Amino acid sequence: MYLAKIYVTYKPSILDPQGVVIKSALERLDYQGIESVTQGKYFQVQLSGADEAAVAKEVEAFVEALLINHNTETYTYDLTEI
Amino acid sequence: MYLAKIYVTYKPSILDPQGVVIKSALERLDYQGIESVTQGKYFQVQLSGADEAAVAKEVEAFVEALLINHNTETYTYDLTEI
Repeated sequence: MYLAKIYVTYKPSILDPQGVVIKSALERLDYQGIESVTQGKYFQVQLSGADEAAVAKEVEAFVEALLINHNTETYTYDLTEI
Repeated sequence: MYLAKIYVTYKPSILDPQGVVIKSALERLDYQGIESVTQGKYFQVQLSGADEAAVAKEVEAFVEALLINHNTETYTYDLTEI
């Protein structure tokens, strides 16, 4: 069994409006030294399957087919055996 | 300078409706072996500051003050020097 942790963020060229709002709120709340904030999505998917390479291929397939918007978002993931 | 990666998820006792919907969509799309799916939020915050313990304390303070809903959500974070 594997656990895939998938991190989806906006591409660097795309404005992240939630990140901008959070940064300005943190500054208003007097937190110091905040240089940048980005907000993304985080998925945890548990997959049965014994072959790590096959599971990784499946994760990439379904992230690209369902979880991201190709125009604006990019992703990374970690796969760990559990 | 530090980069905080913050992962916010529902507490285990709280239903994650987005995760349930994604799991059922993946099954309808014929992906095999999906045991569970949870969706959460992912924040990347860059902070200036030289003292790791002080930066960690600030991250915990502002996550608890602004980024999570104490009733339903929990969080973890990693802090790396950049």
